Amino acid sequence: MTQAPTREDKFSFGLWTVGWQANDMFGSASRPPLDAVEAVHRLSELGAWGITFHDDDLIPFGSADDERERRLKRFRAALAETGMVVPTVTTNLFSHPIFKDGGLTSNDRAVRRFALRKVMRNMELAAELGASTYVLWGGREGAETDAAKDIKAAMDRYREGIDFLAQYVLDQGLGLRLALEPKPNEPRGDILLPTVGHALAFISTLQNHEIVGVNPEVGHEQMAGLNVVHGFGQALWQGKLFHVDLNGQRGPRFDQDLVFGHGDVLSSFFLVDLLEHGGYDGPRHFDYKPLRTENMDGVWESAAANMRSYLIFAERSRAFRADPEVQEALAAALVPELAVPTLNEGETAADLLADRSAFEDFDPDKAAERGYGFVRLAQLALDHLTGAR
Amino acid sequence: MTQAPTREDKFSFGLWTVGWQANDMFGSASRPPLDAVEAVHRLSELGAWGITFHDDDLIPFGSADDERERRLKRFRAALAETGMVVPTVTTNLFSHPIFKDGGLTSNDRAVRRFALRKVMRNMELAAELGASTYVLWGGREGAETDAAKDIKAAMDRYREGIDFLAQYVLDQGLGLRLALEPKPNEPRGDILLPTVGHALAFISTLQNHEIVGVNPEVGHEQMAGLNVVHGFGQALWQGKLFHVDLNGQRGPRFDQDLVFGHGDVLSSFFLVDLLEHGGYDGPRHFDYKPLRTENMDGVWESAAANMRSYLIFAERSRAFRADPEVQEALAAALVPELAVPTLNEGETAADLLADRSAFEDFDPDKAAERGYGFVRLAQLALDHLTGAR
Amino acid sequence: MTQAPTREDKFSFGLWTVGWQANDMFGSASRPPLDAVEAVHRLSELGAWGITFHDDDLIPFGSADDERERRLKRFRAALAETGMVVPTVTTNLFSHPIFKDGGLTSNDRAVRRFALRKVMRNMELAAELGASTYVLWGGREGAETDAAKDIKAAMDRYREGIDFLAQYVLDQGLGLRLALEPKPNEPRGDILLPTVGHALAFISTLQNHEIVGVNPEVGHEQMAGLNVVHGFGQALWQGKLFHVDLNGQRGPRFDQDLVFGHGDVLSSFFLVDLLEHGGYDGPRHFDYKPLRTENMDGVWESAAANMRSYLIFAERSRAFRADPEVQEALAAALVPELAVPTLNEGETAADLLADRSAFEDFDPDKAAERGYGFVRLAQLALDHLTGAR
Amino acid sequence: MTQAPTREDKFSFGLWTVGWQANDMFGSASRPPLDAVEAVHRLSELGAWGITFHDDDLIPFGSADDERERRLKRFRAALAETGMVVPTVTTNLFSHPIFKDGGLTSNDRAVRRFALRKVMRNMELAAELGASTYVLWGGREGAETDAAKDIKAAMDRYREGIDFLAQYVLDQGLGLRLALEPKPNEPRGDILLPTVGHALAFISTLQNHEIVGVNPEVGHEQMAGLNVVHGFGQALWQGKLFHVDLNGQRGPRFDQDLVFGHGDVLSSFFLVDLLEHGGYDGPRHFDYKPLRTENMDGVWESAAANMRSYLIFAERSRAFRADPEVQEALAAALVPELAVPTLNEGETAADLLADRSAFEDFDPDKAAERGYGFVRLAQLALDHLTGAR
Repeated sequence: MTQAPTREDKFSFGLWTVGWQANDMFGSASRPPLDAVEAVHRLSELGAWGITFHDDDLIPFGSADDERERRLKRFRAALAETGMVVPTVTTNLFSHPIFKDGGLTSNDRAVRRFALRKVMRNMELAAELGASTYVLWGGREGAETDAAKDIKAAMDRYREGIDFLAQYVLDQGLGLRLALEPKPNEPRGDILLPTVGHALAFISTLQNHEIVGVNPEVGHEQMAGLNVVHGFGQALWQGKLFHVDLNGQRGPRFDQDLVFGHGDVLSSFFLVDLLEHGGYDGPRHFDYKPLRTENMDGVWESAAANMRSYLIFAERSRAFRADPEVQEALAAALVPELAVPTLNEGETAADLLADRSAFEDFDPDKAAERGYGFVRLAQLALDHLTGAR
Repeated sequence: MTQAPTREDKFSFGLWTVGWQANDMFGSASRPPLDAVEAVHRLSELGAWGITFHDDDLIPFGSADDERERRLKRFRAALAETGMVVPTVTTNLFSHPIFKDGGLTSNDRAVRRFALRKVMRNMELAAELGASTYVLWGGREGAETDAAKDIKAAMDRYREGIDFLAQYVLDQGLGLRLALEPKPNEPRGDILLPTVGHALAFISTLQNHEIVGVNPEVGHEQMAGLNVVHGFGQALWQGKLFHVDLNGQRGPRFDQDLVFGHGDVLSSFFLVDLLEHGGYDGPRHFDYKPLRTENMDGVWESAAANMRSYLIFAERSRAFRADPEVQEALAAALVPELAVPTLNEGETAADLLADRSAFEDFDPDKAAERGYGFVRLAQLALDHLTGAR
Repeated sequence: MTQAPTREDKFSFGLWTVGWQANDMFGSASRPPLDAVEAVHRLSELGAWGITFHDDDLIPFGSADDERERRLKRFRAALAETGMVVPTVTTNLFSHPIFKDGGLTSNDRAVRRFALRKVMRNMELAAELGASTYVLWGGREGAETDAAKDIKAAMDRYREGIDFLAQYVLDQGLGLRLALEPKPNEPRGDILLPTVGHALAFISTLQNHEIVGVNPEVGHEQMAGLNVVHGFGQALWQGKLFHVDLNGQRGPRFDQDLVFGHGDVLSSFFLVDLLEHGGYDGPRHFDYKPLRTENMDGVWESAAANMRSYLIFAERSRAFRADPEVQEALAAALVPELAVPTLNEGETAADLLADRSAFEDFDPDKAAERGYGFVRLAQLALDHLTGAR
Repeated sequence: MTQAPTREDKFSFGLWTVGWQANDMFGSASRPPLDAVEAVHRLSELGAWGITFHDDDLIPFGSADDERERRLKRFRAALAETGMVVPTVTTNLFSHPIFKDGGLTSNDRAVRRFALRKVMRNMELAAELGASTYVLWGGREGAETDAAKDIKAAMDRYREGIDFLAQYVLDQGLGLRLALEPKPNEPRGDILLPTVGHALAFISTLQNHEIVGVNPEVGHEQMAGLNVVHGFGQALWQGKLFHVDLNGQRGPRFDQDLVFGHGDVLSSFFLVDLLEHGGYDGPRHFDYKPLRTENMDGVWESAAANMRSYLIFAERSRAFRADPEVQEALAAALVPELAVPTLNEGETAADLLADRSAFEDFDPDKAAERGYGFVRLAQLALDHLTGAR
């Protein structure tokens, strides 16, 4: 019933997702390395549209120039053969020990300068490959003790770094928009810009704020117990939802990176509803980790599962919205009335004060008798989600 | 050793804190009502400087005008007798059932209009009493199911409401600054503007953003597992830390409102360090609940405990900063180097690209051998916090 | 499609659930009181089988004897008219301020004795009404500071209390089994016996452990971030799952008591699968709170929603188990092999040491190449849950 | 002031703690390998008493017999030179991919048999080195989807495995007690026996339960938001606190393994109070990870910091208990009264029912007026903890 994924669905995957060898905090790799070329082909066959990468995923840290070129050539060829695109690229500023106190906000100035150069270099590659979004996840920008990091100085450096990189993009005409990816913790005890809210707030202070937005990840927001529909929704409302990372998480705990839909099902359903009907038209990017229990067959099963989950939710969302009983229940719950401005057109404070129906003659006890019918709406949503209607 | 609180410490308390009768989700009141006049006198005697209130704390919802005047008169007299000030006032948009779906973002437009009027009325009182900050906690602005709330419409209405109220303040010359108080959940399943980051982001979209800032509460941020020093620090850095709510919380769970210092001790210590040395000069406001196990003697003990904890942490913070070994350890950890811009003065992208020491000649493996000494710093902090140095 | 609930489904509701007037930590009642007789009739009409109550739900704390009899008479009549049963009864040891430091473990010995008497009295009523399970939720047994509660003394008193009550049941021939209900926190900062594990461990120390089991609540375990299928499963495995409280919760935060299925959908599905196919035959009891936004119509909608969610999950679970592809995937994932003992029948340590295939000749690298196919299983489950197969 | 650690303090460290090379989920090793012999010498110099290890820490997985002997010989020599002891040993059933679905509860029976053999082999070594405790952490015993693990079969296999190993210890006269280490999640999505409660409950079902207890870890319990003083206290009360793992954690998030005292300070203080005054006499074992930002100097600083924190808390705890005002406050809070049985000696149910003072003549409203003074106690504890008294 649910259709197979197509290029029009704009599904993309990080090379590091299917390529994760499954070494974790307590165990060594359980899978062989994956050739980037194979990744491109297999994802293409599964119906994906794009592939993304950190510089070091494609070209190991410290590779010589000829090795770099050799790898890029093979990768470009695979793209050409398959028609897969590279919508998004990002930098690894967290794996090498040099970044152990961060990149753009390391206490060590030489590290910060090195980090800028590493990003600049990869931004050029991103532009060359046709990417339109450049993601920055500051996974090591943070601290384990408040004694170690002057928070105001750190914010200054973060702003300096992002503004500089954005200016570089503009000056070089790279055609990229920057998307900051928030995360509350792990691998650092606390990470700067811990939620989509903090990142949006930070962006508002930038010189080059127009080309900087966010790339929220489902699991990262849920690690802070936050509602992803609210968070992604606020970013969309602020015109800053430049990219999304879809996956699964089961509340505040380690970063699970489950398959999308294998965590909080209700939130996944409503998030797809938001993305499909709320004006987002960027990639549907999966940033997940195939379970360490799986071999390569399981890796490809898991890649397909992400897309299948998304498409199931999209289908259920369409049916939910089209159901006349749902529409009636939304109206009864006054959901559409929230779109009506609170003030009349041109109404001033004096006008409002003069409107006795708003206050003096308003009977709050009487008005409070209304039942909103939100439980009914929630059950209608569950009925649709489970295919029970 | 630790000195007693004085007016200079600018300690203030919500009338609803010492006045809480200790009825909770699972139990009825365990304490008698507290007269506002007694609250003013007792807090004054304990060394507090200010008292704050929601409209309905002082004047019960729906009171007739003469009752309102009678209560205000007695309250003003108590202030005059004691010299206590009212630095901050706020509105109750959450207790009465009329607000069960929120105030400024209720799906019901009539409720939104009533809410605006309620705030406007109380803002005038706030200005009259000399307050300079007006807090808005949207505790009921939220939802339990994503089907019930169109998030973009809700944000539109929230912006409309706050901008309207800020304009009213400006037009009437009320001399107030607005401070939004974030909270992730409780009493609603999810609350809009769940963290200090989301509130700062929202403020950046306001017409009247200059007079709107935040009033973060320690426990509210910790309910999302967030680092309060980072969150309050970002607000301070953005020039938006207009007010603070100090209390205690033990991680993601119900809103505990413990005495300040009776939750996360390390974070309390570093937060006081930030407030005392980071440029904040507003009230030190306690928003806590005396345990339900306490009678009125315990209420006053708990009020004193908040101030005592703060003063202990402030004293420890001064000693920490003054310790030569700490200063040496901070330098060794390159903490001051983070205040040095990453780029040289006037350095361009081209300059940075031309600096081979930044990348081509930089040896990341070698540079990564540095140990930052953060554990040593953390232990020095613990030593000072525990008075062990 | 999904059938309507019938008596055979053994759905029961707490009188305090549909009867909750929606006063919460931040707001006053939004609904009128509900007559117990009406509750019995309405629930019966909706297809429920049983109703449960705390003593004080049915007979207000401190009622005179004739008032008590009057209320009981009306309640019994309603049961008789409808055929509804009272499978379970419990005691309120948390609402009245006398229990502010707990009932069975209050520091105040007189309170502990009063609590015992209150339970004994209500146990007799429970037996008289035909209940077979007596639930004890020690919501106030706990502390906010470790200085206030000697944990070993508290455990001694808890054991003394439960053993005494169990002995009373045996001596009086009341025919009840006791079911302890764990909860990690709220209303106390930390509650004793915080999870199903701690309660089971405690029970193992009782003199009368045979008639004491647990009544885990979905949301309470999820407030500690725990997997309810694992927790309920361990209780079932230990023969101690005497009763269940079904509802919804969205991770570590305040106790939400959402409708069953309106929280973590995946866990709800697998929990129903466990209850339906794992050997549990007790009541399916809902302990939830209708949202404060609802009026009485919404209350009855929400009661129906709990049962409907359960039945949808039960139907999906049956289809999941019956699907040949699922059976094949379970076999491929070696799920049935876990039921095979690790040792051969009668195998000794010496035998195992002599089996070279188990160690010396076992090739872990080779064996580790197996992929378990768990992601495939997870997706098959999601497919069935969403009706996509 | 605070004294230096001595052997009498019984401080021990895992070889894997100081030896962790700081490769984490998002980064490669930042420190060189540490020779076990050096670890013994350095820890001895710092004042530690014991060292512990997983089999694979000392002898890499798959080492040939002569390599094994060579390494053991050097290690024994270091112990002899320093006087350091090996109080505890454990098995690594989580790093090699063969254990990706667990050891004792893997769906794959051959893996379970291999796991048993691996434990048996290392138990013999443990006994030979004089250890008295054998820890079992089942870090991979768990699942990410409930479809993949039959929970009752898993519990059967877990019980079979532990009972078999305990029987082996008894039969061989190895003189070991087994200590199970609970953890809620990470690296598995959900781990079996997630808390100290679940482990104690499981132990109560064992044939050989007398020699099986628990080894709770501070951070693991706090990852579930649980109170460690309550959890360790219940284990002590049940006579099952065989060993402890001390470290630091900041609530529900990834497993941080911070230095003891660098997480939740209040809980650390009260936990030391419990261990020092509650009848625990086993090792004070640190299971932590030196921050990845540190080089080897920082590693040794961090090892020393664990012991120093413990000793500071122990000193503060003694002063707290000795303070007459604290004693008076404890009495006022009726803390000692909790040690008095609720029932009179020999009191029967009939006696209690006949005691009118317990119920009929008891005035709960009046009795509820008592204030417990818990906030005062909490503040006295904070005063002592911070050295402010």
